[in-house]
Amino acid sequence: MLQTFYAHNHKPTARDIRRANRLAVLHQLLAHGPMSRQELSRRCDLSLATVCNVIADLLNEGIVVESGLEESQGGRPGMILALNAGLGVVAGVDVAETYIHFELFDLALHRLGAFERHLSPDENQPEQIVGYLVTGLEALLARSGVPASKLVGAGISVPGPFEHTRGVSVFAPNWGWRDVPLMDMLAEQIHVPLYLDNPLKFNVIAESWFGAGRGVQNLVALVLGTGVGAGLVINGTLHRGISNSAGEWGHTTIVFGGRQCRCGSRGCVEAYVGAPGIILTLREFAPGSEILTAGDQTAVIAALAEAARRGDAVAQQALRQTAEYLGAGIANVINLLNPEMIVLGSWVGLEIGPLILADLERAVERYALKPPLRTVRIVVGQALPNAVSTGAGLLALDQFLAESGSGTNRRRRQSE
Amino acid sequence: MLQTFYAHNHKPTARDIRRANRLAVLHQLLAHGPMSRQELSRRCDLSLATVCNVIADLLNEGIVVESGLEESQGGRPGMILALNAGLGVVAGVDVAETYIHFELFDLALHRLGAFERHLSPDENQPEQIVGYLVTGLEALLARSGVPASKLVGAGISVPGPFEHTRGVSVFAPNWGWRDVPLMDMLAEQIHVPLYLDNPLKFNVIAESWFGAGRGVQNLVALVLGTGVGAGLVINGTLHRGISNSAGEWGHTTIVFGGRQCRCGSRGCVEAYVGAPGIILTLREFAPGSEILTAGDQTAVIAALAEAARRGDAVAQQALRQTAEYLGAGIANVINLLNPEMIVLGSWVGLEIGPLILADLERAVERYALKPPLRTVRIVVGQALPNAVSTGAGLLALDQFLAESGSGTNRRRRQSE
Repeated sequence: MLQTFYAHNHKPTARDIRRANRLAVLHQLLAHGPMSRQELSRRCDLSLATVCNVIADLLNEGIVVESGLEESQGGRPGMILALNAGLGVVAGVDVAETYIHFELFDLALHRLGAFERHLSPDENQPEQIVGYLVTGLEALLARSGVPASKLVGAGISVPGPFEHTRGVSVFAPNWGWRDVPLMDMLAEQIHVPLYLDNPLKFNVIAESWFGAGRGVQNLVALVLGTGVGAGLVINGTLHRGISNSAGEWGHTTIVFGGRQCRCGSRGCVEAYVGAPGIILTLREFAPGSEILTAGDQTAVIAALAEAARRGDAVAQQALRQTAEYLGAGIANVINLLNPEMIVLGSWVGLEIGPLILADLERAVERYALKPPLRTVRIVVGQALPNAVSTGAGLLALDQFLAESGSGTNRRRRQSE
Repeated sequence: MLQTFYAHNHKPTARDIRRANRLAVLHQLLAHGPMSRQELSRRCDLSLATVCNVIADLLNEGIVVESGLEESQGGRPGMILALNAGLGVVAGVDVAETYIHFELFDLALHRLGAFERHLSPDENQPEQIVGYLVTGLEALLARSGVPASKLVGAGISVPGPFEHTRGVSVFAPNWGWRDVPLMDMLAEQIHVPLYLDNPLKFNVIAESWFGAGRGVQNLVALVLGTGVGAGLVINGTLHRGISNSAGEWGHTTIVFGGRQCRCGSRGCVEAYVGAPGIILTLREFAPGSEILTAGDQTAVIAALAEAARRGDAVAQQALRQTAEYLGAGIANVINLLNPEMIVLGSWVGLEIGPLILADLERAVERYALKPPLRTVRIVVGQALPNAVSTGAGLLALDQFLAESGSGTNRRRRQSE
């Protein structure tokens, strides 16, 4: 009885289908490795004829190569097809508030190399960050032994809502950035197609493709780090919102008139379950706790997790209270969106998530309505080691693949 | 640069397209009245050949009729096509906590008749409600002078999350209903296809089709009555969630540990901006206010609005505080989903909305992030007089039209 009900004037077109079929084939090869046309047809739920047409194009363009015959199972063995991993490389970069993480992938998304640059709290000027990105990409390629000419694209994650629609500007309140035209600044110095977005989008795509959310059509992947937010896959599609700033769950109110948040508002989820918020909760319970002296926020969160694991009562109390806040925030998303899965990700989520999962589930039960509660699972992220840079590499690659058939790809993308 | 990014294994199919084209044509005729194939082609953004094929089927099935030639503009005048309004009628029914509202429509969705039955607070047993629905539909048809045999479907809105996936059961915590198999109970007595859902879905569809949200692809239509919730249109599609219970915005926490909510949790949006919540806010400010003695909740809300309009300070204070709570709740949806439009609907929304809109916009500005705030509009609902029963009629009609081509429509639907 469930059916898709389209709002006024909305419908998919034949062009959408051609593009979707092409990407379905490419995505199967990316997610599951080399396979035959027959297997692609089965996995993509496309006719063999359609798969053959798509593959013919991809072979012509050099995106896909033949990589030998499959083992015969009685019949005529099929040709195995693979992504042409050697065609180029893409970079995936995660610009966070305490580090920049770089990863390099071939076109089958195998990791070729990675490195990380620490950022101190005062290193946050746009020109500085652009400089670090330029030298960092050069260093990444050099360390991986890949000539710069092989780079066909880079995905770069930057904190804060990211507006594609207004000339690709960045709004990063935590850094005091307002309308920074980061794409223009980067494009002057990096001469490959760039794909910029915020970590919420990259993280959910990585979990959807390579992590806990494989095949899940309604997925909420939480980024729990210094900042906090949610990436949304709704009905199988990345939800961007009308100006690409959807997912700012970290700045939804759960405590009316509560703690001051960095965004200027009060009582936001982030003020309670972001790393500084968790540390504040610990401080409220035990102002003199030794855990608080462990060092920077990364060190304090690690010390808190370690103390909880060895049974420290104060640490466990702080984590229980964190689970309560997080449970209320997660139940809000469950009640509003009725998703199939919630994934706890980013460094705080991966560190704290496994410790609080049982408390968290009990808290969510108290806040969520029964019908959406019955159908949701809460899990810890699996798109490791860095879901955001994996997602950034994947989207850069996807953009390259999607536009590779157009012939004008490189030229058009660079002049944007 | 914005593109649709499909999650793993998701793609539209040719079957989706055929159905979408058929519905696009029918929806244009519904929303804009009779027109030629040429105009349908233009409005639907479909080729003339596709429109001609769709229309040929619809003429064969008797869904569409030719209704004369258009006025010539020099060339050969085209044939005007119209929905076959006389083919049958559909009912749209809004079962709320204080009334049941019935409307009857022809197949072009012209209103043929309406009536309303008052419900007292103790009239809430499933058998009672089923009885009222059966006799109400008979009375609706009789009063409208339409023979019962003309009824081809009914859409019925019932309060609370509604699960299609578990054999169509209803969960209405406000009435103490848990897993009531309402569809089975109704189908025993009403022998036409029934479409049951909650008011959140019907309201947003009505606003999307005939109200404030025409053409808006990312729309949040709030139901503000005794209960509170949101209907979501996301990327042009009604968002149901994984078990059809999406939209329970009324049961998202905004005041951690705050007022007891009817759902069992605390601090929910509904406990502050549902009619009883607004009345409680007024009582907190002025326990002895005369407004509180106006009668039942409908009367008190009307008296509150009237007092505010004539400048009563206490009434204005209560509404300002309501705008503050509502603003925080609306900003949560804006930050999470980045929609294009928020519509304030249902009886409290229509009564109070125009009075608080300016305060509400200022409150939302305090809670929402700048990027999603810049692209959103907040408006009062326009799908009048009763958006929910209009939406219920529309969905019943849509289901009839969508399945009308299959030949087995009536038989199959009744045996569900």
